[in-house]
Amino acid sequence: MFATFDQYIQQRISLSEAEMELLRARSVVRKLRKWQSLLHEGEVWRLQCFIASGCCRLYRFDEAGTDHTLRFAVENWWVTDHESYRTETPSVYNIEALAATTVLTWTKESWDELLRAIPALKTFYEQLQARSYEASQRRIFSLISASAEAKYLEFQQTYPLVFNRVPLHMVASYLGMSRETLSRLRR
Amino acid sequence: MFATFDQYIQQRISLSEAEMELLRARSVVRKLRKWQSLLHEGEVWRLQCFIASGCCRLYRFDEAGTDHTLRFAVENWWVTDHESYRTETPSVYNIEALAATTVLTWTKESWDELLRAIPALKTFYEQLQARSYEASQRRIFSLISASAEAKYLEFQQTYPLVFNRVPLHMVASYLGMSRETLSRLRR
Repeated sequence: MFATFDQYIQQRISLSEAEMELLRARSVVRKLRKWQSLLHEGEVWRLQCFIASGCCRLYRFDEAGTDHTLRFAVENWWVTDHESYRTETPSVYNIEALAATTVLTWTKESWDELLRAIPALKTFYEQLQARSYEASQRRIFSLISASAEAKYLEFQQTYPLVFNRVPLHMVASYLGMSRETLSRLRR
Repeated sequence: MFATFDQYIQQRISLSEAEMELLRARSVVRKLRKWQSLLHEGEVWRLQCFIASGCCRLYRFDEAGTDHTLRFAVENWWVTDHESYRTETPSVYNIEALAATTVLTWTKESWDELLRAIPALKTFYEQLQARSYEASQRRIFSLISASAEAKYLEFQQTYPLVFNRVPLHMVASYLGMSRETLSRLRR
């Protein structure tokens, strides 16, 4: 259960065995069925959530009721709604499993305790957030500047682990193009 | 020179006069002419930069040499390349003034000193970064989900202070649409 997470951490930060044990002890393992929801809009998101296996997406409905995929997450990724977590206000997003998925979760209280107890984890977590923000800037640049074909090729190259595991219409939605445009590009 | 900044800070955090004085003492005021550059791609961005008056944009060239506006910033906003600042690597972005502009800047060394000396500033700065990230998520949602018309109306409503002060083709580029599409929407 913890093998993926242990390896993920050990490749990125140097923690003592006692610190690893504390991280594991505070975690809660959850198994999700395909299409099972982890967050519904209107709920407050209070978890840190690491994907040990499987695949999730974060999505949001527009006013017409169409859903738009903002983010995919596979094993070794985190999935979160930063804003709801930080401000403790209802989320506008939804998170669901796109396959049978195992996640490790920590409550906000546990996570805050861990950040205080493990300075290296705090530094790592801050870097993770900074990198997420920087990745958002690159994605915005791609969305406003790239052709549909370039977006598609970039997605394939950047997220090969995602590309073959998620429905095509969700990839189209993530790239901000219609399913028809994506189908045409693939042919 | 400092009136705008003083008011900005006082409306957001409670600092002692000594702390305000330290903030001012470490700042460097720069006056930019219209079209003057503050950052060229390839340079490392090492500043915190508050806009006291005027208007700037952050932009990036694609491989064909077309520039794309990622961000506008008017008075009371900060303009930065987070990634270059954090990692101390060459920037892929450019920053230029779109009008005569006055900025207050702090070097990374001064800013780090201020964050250590003024805990309330550190908390505020972390929240500012978090809110920037959350705004990026909303922008991504808008870019992938909204119609050209909805993007245009949203921009007008969200950034009225920007809208009337920047060239139309830069607004089009910011919204990820052609100048022709934006002109058609305005008619």
